[in-house]
Amino acid sequence: MRNDLILRVLARQPVPRTPVWMMRQAGRYLPEYRRVREQAGNFMTLCRTPELACEVTLQPLARYPLDAAILFSDILTIPDAMGLGLHFVEGEGPQFERPLRTAADITALPVPDVASDLGYVLDAVRLIRRELDGRVPLLGFSGSPWTLASYMVEGRGSRDFHRIKAMAYGAPALLHELLARLTQSVVAYLQAQIDAGAQAVQVFDTWGGALTTPAFETFSRRYLQQIVQALKASHPAVPVIVFTKGGGQWLESLAATGADGLGIDWTTELGAARARVGKRVVLQGNLDPAVLVAGAPAVRAEVQRVLASFGAGEGHIFNLGHGITPDVDPEVAGAMIEAVHAYSPAWHAD
Amino acid sequence: MRNDLILRVLARQPVPRTPVWMMRQAGRYLPEYRRVREQAGNFMTLCRTPELACEVTLQPLARYPLDAAILFSDILTIPDAMGLGLHFVEGEGPQFERPLRTAADITALPVPDVASDLGYVLDAVRLIRRELDGRVPLLGFSGSPWTLASYMVEGRGSRDFHRIKAMAYGAPALLHELLARLTQSVVAYLQAQIDAGAQAVQVFDTWGGALTTPAFETFSRRYLQQIVQALKASHPAVPVIVFTKGGGQWLESLAATGADGLGIDWTTELGAARARVGKRVVLQGNLDPAVLVAGAPAVRAEVQRVLASFGAGEGHIFNLGHGITPDVDPEVAGAMIEAVHAYSPAWHAD
Repeated sequence: MRNDLILRVLARQPVPRTPVWMMRQAGRYLPEYRRVREQAGNFMTLCRTPELACEVTLQPLARYPLDAAILFSDILTIPDAMGLGLHFVEGEGPQFERPLRTAADITALPVPDVASDLGYVLDAVRLIRRELDGRVPLLGFSGSPWTLASYMVEGRGSRDFHRIKAMAYGAPALLHELLARLTQSVVAYLQAQIDAGAQAVQVFDTWGGALTTPAFETFSRRYLQQIVQALKASHPAVPVIVFTKGGGQWLESLAATGADGLGIDWTTELGAARARVGKRVVLQGNLDPAVLVAGAPAVRAEVQRVLASFGAGEGHIFNLGHGITPDVDPEVAGAMIEAVHAYSPAWHAD
Repeated sequence: MRNDLILRVLARQPVPRTPVWMMRQAGRYLPEYRRVREQAGNFMTLCRTPELACEVTLQPLARYPLDAAILFSDILTIPDAMGLGLHFVEGEGPQFERPLRTAADITALPVPDVASDLGYVLDAVRLIRRELDGRVPLLGFSGSPWTLASYMVEGRGSRDFHRIKAMAYGAPALLHELLARLTQSVVAYLQAQIDAGAQAVQVFDTWGGALTTPAFETFSRRYLQQIVQALKASHPAVPVIVFTKGGGQWLESLAATGADGLGIDWTTELGAARARVGKRVVLQGNLDPAVLVAGAPAVRAEVQRVLASFGAGEGHIFNLGHGITPDVDPEVAGAMIEAVHAYSPAWHAD
């Protein structure tokens, strides 16, 4: 591989500069993405057509000197394969046609056969690996069981998670049944992505931060740990990154999952996070994505601040603290990546 | 005063049980509130009519054995008095007709004259105090400068705060000018509420948790501290509670504002918060408001868990970790309050 900086950081080996990629780097802020997206007609067609998924995965790499490709897909492909009918309403985010509303909905839920039901994802992984031709590593990903369950029970994104929390507080055994089923599916899905060519995987626990500490332990972290442990047993050499948005208070507990890396959102100081868990896990993050709407000078200043907060030495993968948004000027995103290239070597000099 | 439990806790005096009130306790979950709200026609008329504001303030006290009344008003009365045109769209929350869009909008912003422009609030405070007749203390409140500025610049609630953050990262001097003006207004407003009869005040920093740690220090905490210090200088005997939602990582810094109490949302364990800052500040919170949709048995279990997390002794005011929502059954809210009455004395026994 020509550029394996991210894998070297995850293996705690020395690197000459901090590697960088962006969550949602293949996305609507890029005009070339919007063209393919329009051509595909809708988002799920884009996900389900390996040639198009491959094309948009590679777009940001053609534009920027990024250190990883991330599979273009959606975190909700598993519930879609379970029959819930994922669709996207412009400006409203993902929705399910058939959300889980009764205990019978949950007990009747099939565990998808990854090779057939999610074969389109694996085909995309294989195609991207071939087209990448060893330029940078390919990251696979999945939503976390808690995050998937939240969408499946709420039917869409939620502000206060009342349906899923009514289940968590009022019918926990039923929720555990759903989470166990999802965990089984996430493990099989990530194993298949790795077998198809993904060289590291990230689990997005987007809604973990909505929970109390004990509920996070019970309903999210426990299943994150099962996933990491299963992947470590089947594919010990493949790094796993766990990202709980809003999880800054639980870094010790997240590090104890056995993950190689933790995603850190912008509300947590990287230096403080490193002091707490930096010996056990690599930290990934954590520029406030809103900085990208403030222009290149602000971006350069914040990149320097994030690098300085982590400090000297290994163990940091530069990223945003959440996905890049459609309103970002691609030039400004480029300024961020250039700034990481420009300013990070000083933190790796011996 | 017949029931001064909350004031005694804030003064670190012994109490026989944990006092309890609920953020947004006069709200849409109560049918008697919805009747008055309908009669008023719209939300701002309700706020601007002292007799109606008084009536709804007292409604939850007639129903439940609560330990405080909180002035019925809105956190955005100050920007409304500055001329931004606050209005409410059903199901969409507060919006401004004339949000701040240019530097000139900010430099032209008048500092309201509290006695005249916000006299309706002070009239409500006086009327409520008279009607309360010493039953329980009356709490006044305001939004924090950062939270007010966010609404004023975004024009409404926001998910990613791109307009205000573009200003924070790209034009910080302009934002500081706005925040300084708001701080001056918030101080005058809270002083006037106290002079009219409020016996403690709470500053709601609803959006502080959207910031990075250094941006929180610069754009929110600094102004929270100015407010607390100004109130301590003018009204040293009146307790001040500061509530930064999502501020669990910054409790030490929040305690250093000089506030008497800190609101804690449900994501932070009360026991851990107490270990960090419990000697310096009283802690208020922190039941996950979503528990109230899971039914009375779940509520009783979580009340016990929250009380146990804080542990034995003084320094805790029971509350939700955020405002009560319209979908809550008033009977279940009552079960929460009863549970605090039933289970908390054991934590205060000597």
